[in-house]
Amino acid sequence: MGNEPASIIYRPIGVVRSPYVEPSGTPIQGALAPEGEGTIEIFEQYAEGLADLDGFSHIWVIYHFHRSQGFKLKVTPFMDDVERGVFSCRAPRRPNPVGLSLLKLLRIEGSILHVAELDILDETPVLDIKPHYPTVDTRPDVKSGWLDNVDSETRRKRGRADKRFT
Amino acid sequence: MGNEPASIIYRPIGVVRSPYVEPSGTPIQGALAPEGEGTIEIFEQYAEGLADLDGFSHIWVIYHFHRSQGFKLKVTPFMDDVERGVFSCRAPRRPNPVGLSLLKLLRIEGSILHVAELDILDETPVLDIKPHYPTVDTRPDVKSGWLDNVDSETRRKRGRADKRFT
Repeated sequence: MGNEPASIIYRPIGVVRSPYVEPSGTPIQGALAPEGEGTIEIFEQYAEGLADLDGFSHIWVIYHFHRSQGFKLKVTPFMDDVERGVFSCRAPRRPNPVGLSLLKLLRIEGSILHVAELDILDETPVLDIKPHYPTVDTRPDVKSGWLDNVDSETRRKRGRADKRFT
Repeated sequence: MGNEPASIIYRPIGVVRSPYVEPSGTPIQGALAPEGEGTIEIFEQYAEGLADLDGFSHIWVIYHFHRSQGFKLKVTPFMDDVERGVFSCRAPRRPNPVGLSLLKLLRIEGSILHVAELDILDETPVLDIKPHYPTVDTRPDVKSGWLDNVDSETRRKRGRADKRFT
C-alpha cells in the first residue's frame, strides 16, 4: 500500500435550490421520484462554462452532502434491511461525502439551471456538472449485486429517505 | 446569488494503479477503449466498506484529476474541433478537477479492486466508489447535445487523449 496522498480542497461552483429542506422525505434517487423540481445556481464567475449544456436532456451533478456528519463503513441502505458495505450503496454518510445525481435539465436561464428528477437537499454545495452521454455512461449486461434483488414494489415504497443518516 | 460556501476538504480513500502513466495516449473514456486493465488500491482503513461490492459488474469511481493544472471555462474537447463550455464536456481541466468513470469490476482481492474499461491515470487519488445501478443511472429519451453529432468513426479515432490538457 502506497503513502496516502494529501488532502484535496474544492470550492463550490454553485448551490442547489430545492423544495427538500430536510433529509427525511427527500427522494433517495430522482429516477424514483421524478416530479421534484428545483434549480442549480451556478456562481457568476463560472457561468461561461455552461455554454453548450442546453442541448443535453440530462446532466450529472457532483455535490457535497453538506448535512452528512461522519461516516460508517457498513450501512443499512434505504432499499434493504441488512447492513451493506458503504461503497456498495449510494447512502450519504461516506468517507468523502460526495453525491452523484442524474438530473433532467429543463432549461437554462443565465447561470440558473432548472432541473427535474431532483433528489438533492436545499442549499447543497455543487462541485461539478458533467453532461450525461449514454455512449460512455451505460454498458450492456450490467449486474447490480444486492440491488438486483430489490423488487419494484420495494423501490416504490422506499423511494424517499427516512432519518437514518441524519 | 447566495454567499459562496466555504472550501470542502476530502482525503483520498485509495489510489489507481494503471498502465497509463502520461495523459497523452490515455483513453478518454473506458467505453471507447475497454481493453485497459488496472487496479484500485483502497486504503486498509476503508476496506470494510467494500463488502457486497463484488456482486456488481460495474462501479462508478469518483477521483481527483491530480495532473490537471488550473482550468478554463471554454475548452476544445477531444471529440470536437470547436470550443465548448467545460460543463458540457468531460475534459479534466475543470474548476474542481473531479473525475467520474464507469469501470468494469473484474474481481476484488482483499482491498484491491481489479478493473477493466480503465481510463484513469496511474497514481490518481480516489475519492469515492459507488455501485452502478441502471435503474437510477439511465433514462429513456436522452439527448446529448453536441455529443450526439459525433459519429462512430470520430469516436473510434479520437478515443485517446492528446496533450491538450497537460
